[in-house]
This record gives sequence, structure tokens and C-alpha cells, in this order.
Amino acid sequence: MQRKLVTVISVLNEAHREKIRAAAARHGFEALFFDSEAQALPHLSDAEIVFGQSAFFAKNSPRLRWLCTPSAGVDQFTAPDAFASPSALLSNSSGAYGVTIAEHVIMVTLEMLRRQGDYNAIVSRREWRRDLPVRAIKGSRITLLGTGDIGQETALRLRAFGPESIAGMNRSGKNPQALFDRIFRQEALDALLPQTDILIISLPGTPETQRLLDARRVSLLPDQALVVNVGRGSVVDQAALEKELRQGRLLAALDVFEQEPLPQDDPLWTCPNLLLMPHVAGNMTLPYTKDRIVDLFLEDFENYCAGKPLHRLVDIKKGY
Amino acid sequence: MQRKLVTVISVLNEAHREKIRAAAARHGFEALFFDSEAQALPHLSDAEIVFGQSAFFAKNSPRLRWLCTPSAGVDQFTAPDAFASPSALLSNSSGAYGVTIAEHVIMVTLEMLRRQGDYNAIVSRREWRRDLPVRAIKGSRITLLGTGDIGQETALRLRAFGPESIAGMNRSGKNPQALFDRIFRQEALDALLPQTDILIISLPGTPETQRLLDARRVSLLPDQALVVNVGRGSVVDQAALEKELRQGRLLAALDVFEQEPLPQDDPLWTCPNLLLMPHVAGNMTLPYTKDRIVDLFLEDFENYCAGKPLHRLVDIKKGY
Repeated sequence: MQRKLVTVISVLNEAHREKIRAAAARHGFEALFFDSEAQALPHLSDAEIVFGQSAFFAKNSPRLRWLCTPSAGVDQFTAPDAFASPSALLSNSSGAYGVTIAEHVIMVTLEMLRRQGDYNAIVSRREWRRDLPVRAIKGSRITLLGTGDIGQETALRLRAFGPESIAGMNRSGKNPQALFDRIFRQEALDALLPQTDILIISLPGTPETQRLLDARRVSLLPDQALVVNVGRGSVVDQAALEKELRQGRLLAALDVFEQEPLPQDDPLWTCPNLLLMPHVAGNMTLPYTKDRIVDLFLEDFENYCAGKPLHRLVDIKKGY
Repeated sequence: MQRKLVTVISVLNEAHREKIRAAAARHGFEALFFDSEAQALPHLSDAEIVFGQSAFFAKNSPRLRWLCTPSAGVDQFTAPDAFASPSALLSNSSGAYGVTIAEHVIMVTLEMLRRQGDYNAIVSRREWRRDLPVRAIKGSRITLLGTGDIGQETALRLRAFGPESIAGMNRSGKNPQALFDRIFRQEALDALLPQTDILIISLPGTPETQRLLDARRVSLLPDQALVVNVGRGSVVDQAALEKELRQGRLLAALDVFEQEPLPQDDPLWTCPNLLLMPHVAGNMTLPYTKDRIVDLFLEDFENYCAGKPLHRLVDIKKGY
């Protein structure tokens, strides 16, 4: 029986599929492509590799040896019984989203600093009003929580705007590509928050990052600071932040939330001083991102077939 | 009688005024500050220097020797009878607006490429829709018409996004700070337009730039190209562009228009595929811009008092 590689990523185009098919054939795999969980289900019983995003595949693939998710986040796979095949490896597509998320971060940061929401309202009333005070990335003190692919691509772009400073928080203490003026650990966060004009969060959702920005830390930010979250909603105390937004003390651009989809009756939908986006910063709608996802998967597919360690292997206990 | 320096810029703060006052005193000038043309009028009869934006000051200052406008554009001063004192020098504040306009250009470019208008509508309906195909600056072919302060600050920031190419059009053939992959002259524009994904216009309004982007050239742009205009509305055939926007063939972000304020009944207010802004990219609402305007003026004030040429002297005939 031929070894099976099952791909369930509906947004891939025929060129992507052909690339995967060709690589699979070279290593004696049959490549199967489906657009939904239901379509894939009959083929999961003997799938050795699944390239797909849903916990459904982990749960329903008893002979699975490797699951690669086209996402960066892996929250859905961290439950103790997530995998029907407990020895299966999990890898992610970290490294595919930095470009598109960085472009999102720069966009929403500028939209909030330049009061684009207010100007949209002005233009919708056909008013020729031009005098709203605006702010700039130039000269701003920026703090990034998370210095991985997303943090690095964001810092690289922010640098070109001439900010006063770019600080990055991580656990290694390393300054990747010397992109940051300063690297600090979580212990130093409280001291840095009062000197932060723009706080950018790209942390994964893990037990350790849960409510890292709690009510107390939200209150440490200076007046008119901007909070941009493109990591996970669990990192921020959403209610505490909302309170400060409603008081007009802080600004925020949130792409992720404690509960997603955001409930229909959630007060955030109408919260002032907030640019709310339905978790779109890092989805697979940019062609470049799709190309990268496929290339990164095929890189690790070669590693897998050669018995080498996977580059983007996830430590399920750590959650990233 | 003391020599008079009249400043009519209402957005300056007390620190700015004090800086001007001190420099004036050092050179035997009396510095007067007004917030309106009417207030200033009685003092224009013997003003030697005016620091202000309006053609009113040129018209009503018979003893004027130098007018510095806090704007970059000087269209309002180019009429043959604009100055009551024909020998008066005119300088502008070119160099003060590059930073704020570049941040605007990056913002509106990303808003159009990432379909932020559509997402705003989605969010206003409380929908959790995430699948709109988006585009990126990364990999785009960018052409800038104008490589002055605005074009340079914009190119500097665009570079950090990893575009495929950045070409710049000017008349000197020079590549300022090597910011551009290629510098070309107007003769080469027709050949470059079909290979342009993002066209950024920061040209001044002069007889030479009048309708530079006429209907024929608009039609040379490839499908889904984005036109960003932060220069002058006179550079673009607005009706021709609008037609292509309505057909869905092109996208645009316009901050300037053939007639400003845009007339209440102008069809552009409701044109699809257009991000319309009421000429805000380079106004004086960013503190950094105000600081720069004052610093640049004082630099030339020293030149003026020392009998040296003004750095930002405008050739009234050329119009910049």
C-alpha cells in the first residue's frame, strides 16, 4: 500500500498542488487533496502525513506520523488527547506570515495614529475637514512583545519610519538580526510599559502568555498609547483594555480576541478608539503567504523523508 | 523704525513663537504673530518679511522683501500680479512634509491593497468574514513621479517592505541617496506605466505637470494598478481615472483634486475603489511637521540676514 500524504487547504491553487504532488511522487507518497474535513475523513484512517489546519485531522488519523499545520498558531493541538496517534509529530508554518502580518501592523498603526476612522466618517459626510491632530511612527517609542518572524518583519519595516526606539521582549535575550535597539525579558516589562507609545503583541497563546497584559499592566501604559495585538487574544485582559479605550485613555487595533468569532453581542464591536479586525492579519489570502506555506512544508517534507529533524517542529507542551 | 517680521500661522505653539521671536531680536527685527489675515492686515504695510501661507500677504505687503510659505506648494503665488512688491523673494517649506506625507502614502497604499474599506464595512455589520484576497507592497513594482523630499521619504519606507522595484521620475536624472532602483525622465514614462503596480504622484502643480497623467496614460496602467496622488490634483485627468475606478479596472487613493474643496455634488465622493481624503496628507497637524517648518524658516532667516541665498528659494516662473 502506498504511503499517503493528505492535504486539506482549500486556498491552494493548482500550481501549489502540482508542486506537492511532484515531491510526494519522488518519495513514494500518494498526494491527495481535499477542500473539507468531511471530504478528507475517509482517507484519514491510513494517512501518514496530513498538511492541514484543523484539530479534526489529529483526532481522526490513527496512523498519523506527522501533521503540518499551515498556520503559525497551534493552540488547537495542545490538549492531551488531541492526537489519535500520540507519537505523531506536529509542525507549523511559522515564517510564512511575518510579511503579511507586518504589513497589517504598519497599516493599522498608521490608521490609528492618523485618525483614519475619524476621517472616514468626515468623508462619508462629504465634509472638507482637515485639522485633526495626527501622530507619527517617526519619533515614537515602540515595544514589541515577541521577536519571532512577525516581530522581526515588523521591526524591519518600523525602522524605516525613524522611530525613537524599538525594544523587543523575548526569552532568549537574543537580538535577531540586530533589528531591535534593546532586547528585554518579561521581568523588565513593567518598567518599559510607561515608556511605550506603541505596543505590538505577536505572542503565541500559551499558558505562559495568558493575560500577560493584565489590567495592572494595561494601566502602566502612558496616556494615548496604542496597543496592537496580532498574536492571540488570550494575551490581553480584553475587558480591562476596553475600559481604557472607552475612557479615551488608550487606543487599540485588535485582530485577535479572547473568543473568536467575536460574539454578536460583544461590546467591543462598538468600542471607541478601537480598530477591530476579524482575525485577518495573517490569513492565507496573500499569494506570497500561500507560496511560502507550500515551500516551508516541502522543505520539512524533505527533512521528514530523509529522517532529519523537522525545521518547524512544535513542542506541544510549550505550545509553539 | 524697526524691521518687521510678520508670522501668520495659527497652529504654531508658544515655544515655536518664542524661537522665532528670539531669532528676530538677534537681527533687529520685531516679530509679530497673528492668527488671521484680517488681524495681520494693518501690519502688512511695512512688513519686510512675512511667514505665512496665503496669497493675501503677497498682495497686501507693498514693502515686502521676502515671503516664506509654511507649505510646500506655491501655486497661489505664481500669478503675474501676485506680489505687490515685485522684487520680493518667495521661499517655501519643502522638506517639512516628507515624513508625514510618506506615512500617509504607506497607510493608504496598504489600506487599498488589503481592502480595508471592504473590511470596515464587514466589521460594521458585525460579520466575521476573513477571506478577501489581499495584496502586498512586498513584490510590487512601484513607480514614483517626483523624487523630492516626499518621494525620497516614501521610497525609503517602501524599501523596507521588499518591493520588486522602485523607479523614480525626475528631470535631473539624479538618484537621490541611491533610494531608487532606477531613475527615468518623462520620455520613458509611457514605457514604464504598463509595468507599474503602484503609482505614487508627489509632483507640484505646474504648467509642465498639468494632466501629466492624462486619459491615455491612465489607460496604460495594468489592471488593478493603484494610483496614489499626494501632489496636486491638476496632474491627473480626474474624470478619466474615475471611469477606470468605476469599471473596477484600477484602484486609487487621492488626497488632492482638480478642485478643492471637492464640490459637494462631485461624483468622486461615492466612487468605488477609491480612498478619498480631504487633502490631509501634508497638513500641519503633526507636531514634527510644525517643528520642521519653524526650523527651516529660521535657517533661511539666518541666510536672509547674512545676505546669503535662501535654501528654499522658489523660482516663481517654474512654480517650485
